[in-house]
Order: sequence, then C-alpha cells, then structure tokens
Amino acid sequence: MTAGGLLLSLGGRALAGVDPLPSWNESGARRAILDFVRRVATPGSPDFVPPEARIATFDNDGTLWAEQPLYFQLAFALDEVKRLAPQHPEWRNREPFRSILAGDRKGVMASGEKGLGQIVAATHAGMSTEAFAETVKNWFEIARHPTLGRPYDQLVYQPQLELLAFLRANGFKTFIVSGGGVEFMRVFAERSYGIPPEQVVGSSGVVTYATGPDGKPVLLKQAKVEFVDDGPGKPVGINRFIGRRPILAFGNSDGDLQMLQYTAAGGGARLPLLLHHTDAGREWAYDRRSPIGKLDKALDEAAARNWQVVDMKADWKVVFPP
Amino acid sequence: MTAGGLLLSLGGRALAGVDPLPSWNESGARRAILDFVRRVATPGSPDFVPPEARIATFDNDGTLWAEQPLYFQLAFALDEVKRLAPQHPEWRNREPFRSILAGDRKGVMASGEKGLGQIVAATHAGMSTEAFAETVKNWFEIARHPTLGRPYDQLVYQPQLELLAFLRANGFKTFIVSGGGVEFMRVFAERSYGIPPEQVVGSSGVVTYATGPDGKPVLLKQAKVEFVDDGPGKPVGINRFIGRRPILAFGNSDGDLQMLQYTAAGGGARLPLLLHHTDAGREWAYDRRSPIGKLDKALDEAAARNWQVVDMKADWKVVFPP
Repeated sequence: MTAGGLLLSLGGRALAGVDPLPSWNESGARRAILDFVRRVATPGSPDFVPPEARIATFDNDGTLWAEQPLYFQLAFALDEVKRLAPQHPEWRNREPFRSILAGDRKGVMASGEKGLGQIVAATHAGMSTEAFAETVKNWFEIARHPTLGRPYDQLVYQPQLELLAFLRANGFKTFIVSGGGVEFMRVFAERSYGIPPEQVVGSSGVVTYATGPDGKPVLLKQAKVEFVDDGPGKPVGINRFIGRRPILAFGNSDGDLQMLQYTAAGGGARLPLLLHHTDAGREWAYDRRSPIGKLDKALDEAAARNWQVVDMKADWKVVFPP
Repeated sequence: MTAGGLLLSLGGRALAGVDPLPSWNESGARRAILDFVRRVATPGSPDFVPPEARIATFDNDGTLWAEQPLYFQLAFALDEVKRLAPQHPEWRNREPFRSILAGDRKGVMASGEKGLGQIVAATHAGMSTEAFAETVKNWFEIARHPTLGRPYDQLVYQPQLELLAFLRANGFKTFIVSGGGVEFMRVFAERSYGIPPEQVVGSSGVVTYATGPDGKPVLLKQAKVEFVDDGPGKPVGINRFIGRRPILAFGNSDGDLQMLQYTAAGGGARLPLLLHHTDAGREWAYDRRSPIGKLDKALDEAAARNWQVVDMKADWKVVFPP
C-alpha cells in the first residue's frame, strides 16, 4: 500500500472508532495526544478550540521522516553533483565538488558553510521551479538510503502518519514547518503525508519571474537564500505563511525550540511535542552531540516546562511503514 | 446580516440549486464563469480538474473591495499618523507628516515613495504583530469611507462574495494574492470573504522573533520591506505561498498582469478575469490614467488574449452588499 493509501485507510479507521494510533504504545505520550485532541475538539469542553484555529505544525527532518546519516535533501544535492559532474569538468579541481566526486565525506564537511552554499547553488538554482521539481521526483524514484536500502520517501514515520491523519479527522489543519527547502518538500509531502503544497512552510531561495524562450512565463530559481525557516525563523515563518499560532507543534531538535516556545506561549490548551531519537536498533539514537538534528537546549527546556517528550524506542511500536 | 452570514447563506443557496450568482447580470462574464466551473468540476468532463488543483487567486484592492479615492490601507496609515501625532511633536515640522496633519493631500503626494516609506515605518512597524492586528481591528470599527460613509469592510463587492462562495462550493480553494499588507488583510479577510489567514498572500515587512518584557515570545514588526506582492511579485508569491499554479485568477489592474499571464499559461482549462471599473454612478470609473489601480497594459493584453473582462456597470446588478 502506498503511504497515501495508508493515510486514507487510517483516516477511515479513525472515523469508524477503531484505534486511530495503532503504532503508538500505551504510554504517557499517546495518552497526552489523545487527551489533548479530545479536549480541544469536543464542543462544550472548557478547552474547546474552533476548527479554524486547530493549527498543527510539524518539523520534517527527524520528526516526520529520518535524517541520518545526513539530511536527505543534502543526500539529494550530493547525488546531483555526481549526476551533473560530466557537464562540469572544472569541478574536478574545485572544492567542495572535488571531495564529493572522490567520495571524501571529511573533505566535504571541511568546506563548511561556504561549501554548502556552493553545493546548493550548483544543484538548487539556475533552473525553473518546474524543472527542479521534476529532478527531485526522479531522484526519489532511483535513490536508495545508504544503510536502510529503501527509497527515501519510504523512511517516513508510521506513527506520525497516523497522528497526522488523526489530527485531520478531528478538524486540524496540518502544516510542515521545516528548515528543509520548500520546493524540495512539496514534491513528496502531499503523496507521503497528505499535506498539500500550500501547507508546506520551509526555507527558500530567491525566485524570479521571467519569460521563457517559448514566450511563456517561467519562475527561475536563483542562487541566493531568501528565508531560513529554522530556529527563530520558524515562528517567523509560521506568522508569515499561516498567520495563526499553532496549538500543537512537533519537533525533534534545537532548531524547533522557538516554534515550541511560541506554540506553548499562546492562550488555552497547547501541546508542544518533542521526538527523542532513542532507538539505535530500529532507527538511530542521538541527541546532544549529534551534528545532525542536535537536541540539547530543547531537551532541557522540555524538562523544565513539562513539554511532552516522545521516546521513539519506548513510545512507538513500529518506526517505518511495513 | 454580516458579510460572514451572507457568505454562509449564499453557500447554502448554491448547494440547494438556487442561482449561485444572483448579483451577476445575464451576460458573457457570468456565462464564462458558470461554464468554466462546470467544466473543471464535473467528473468525466474533458476539462476536469481534481479538487486539490482547483486553486483560485484574487487580487484584493479594486477586485474584492473598492480602492478609491485611495487604497484603504493608506487611509488607515494616514489615520494612524493623526492618532499617533500627540506622541510625536517632531512630526509637526517634518514631511510627510506635516502635510498629513495639515490635511494637505498634495504635500503628502509630493513626498513620493520616500514619504510613503516613512508613513509605513511610522504606522506599520515598532510593535508586535498582535498589537498591530488589534490597531487595524479598532480602525475598522471607527473609520468611515470619506464619500460613501460606510465602514471600509462594508465596501467589499457583493458579486465577488457570491463568486467566492460559489467557487468554494465547487471544491475550489480561494486565495487572496494582493499588493496589500498581509497582516492588514488578515484582520478582515476571514470575516469579510471567508478566506482564512493562511490563504492570504500579500506584501510584508521583516518580522523578528524576540522575548517580550513578560518573558514570553513576541513577533516584532520591523521598518524594512521584505516582499512586495505586486506585478512580477504575484506569480513569485503564488509559488512561494501556494506552490501550485492557479486555474482561475481575478485582478483589476496592471499589478495583476503577471498573475494573469502565469495563470493563463498553464495547461488545461484556465480562466483569467479582469474587473474593469466602468461605473461612475455606483462606484468609480477609471482605468488607463488612474494613479490608483491603473489598468492599461493588462486591458490591452486581455483584448489580445481573450481574457474575460468583467464590466462593472454592465455585468453587476449590485456593487456593494445591501
């Protein structure tokens, strides 16, 4: 079954009164979610929230899908450098491209933020938005995760698919609010999560309007960062794109701290959730010292403020869809 | 009846098979709309469009509500300067504030774009997003249009309220895509048009995330333009916020030209619409030489490309809600 089909069947089951969260163990996290949704969605409840204000925002990398051993969008970019290399003989002697082509991970990392900027410019700019989306779509079809062997879009978290469907069945509007590139995520978000393009908030580069060689309008992706939807950028992005404060937010790293603070600080019932990657057997275990998805300050703040921490190992029956 | 109640009753009537566009005269424009919606929303039709792709974008000023004798948001800003003047004695000798306070319209206009920037900075920045929304809300309650005498949010167009409700009843998602400020429009768009905040795309200033004096997170409006959602900015804004090309777009000025081009250039059935202000009796008559809502190039392009022009005087039975 496709993720989309799975979502539909889950939605149907939720409506039919069957357990809407079958992949969540009986635990505090599951109870907190069920209790919160019941309180805000039940007319007459003191915590009732009208449907239009039932806004739920989810980080993507490490919250809705995996992010190890490196962010999947970065894996895409590195694959793109390899695919495009024959057209760029000059890359053989230029960092960070030389290291990418030589499979030298350390060399790539050594190029730092400047190198990352060059990788993004080489793989995410200089084409139309439509051509870029087509490239990403093709990559999802052929690329496989280096250790798990699956297509990347099958590394979404099954319990989160159930949670998204459960929230929507209870009148929530579900959004992605991620540091990932918005044009990258929109390619698979509707199919994988049931989240339409207009509900995906992410980082973006400058796009310009031009007339193509065929006389038709075209939107061109430029090599200039426009908005970084991470850290304090997340509440800013929420305000800009959604214009309402979420009542539920789900993250997994310090990049989500401000989104969780902003969500928690609103009036009425609130549910800030933090996924803790504790499952070295089925997924990965990492937090305070991980270069990817570092979870340090937000873990302290969750403890101090009683935010709900979801322990992947303890709280999830399964991690990925079957 | 409130605009919201009106919308609801119109939606109900559309579903019950009663004329969904009672304020539209029997004419080419009305027929083009009814025909288009029937074609894209009827399963099995060669022009069928799945519901998730039924995106309709509407300009606001001069398309959903009036814009004469000057953009309503500018009227708000001028009123704000007057309201705030007692706290700013220095304004008495500084343009453009001196002219505003003296009621000298020509002096204000003479200050040009630089003056406009100062007006926006003085009235749209230096406060939280929530405080700004509250100020706008209060203004709508007390301000009256200088010649029509109504509250500004009662100068929405009745035929367009019917069209919005009709589109939504046929599975469309309706968006505002306007050069107006997004935080200004969101205050009334849901109540007046049934368009929720997350479906309002507009111009915006920089917003920053900070911790308020009470220790709570706060979003602060800065005096720096971030995005101008006008002209070529409209397809860019559509791509950024919606991520899908509209199949129906409605504008009224040259600032809408690129949105209409972009909409028209997509595959399948398309309906680009242009409102022509021809009704000096009930509203205003203006086009090629108007400083507000100038309609010149887009009128030529509509003729050349067979876009549907809506003639306010000929095509609308009423202009404003009763």
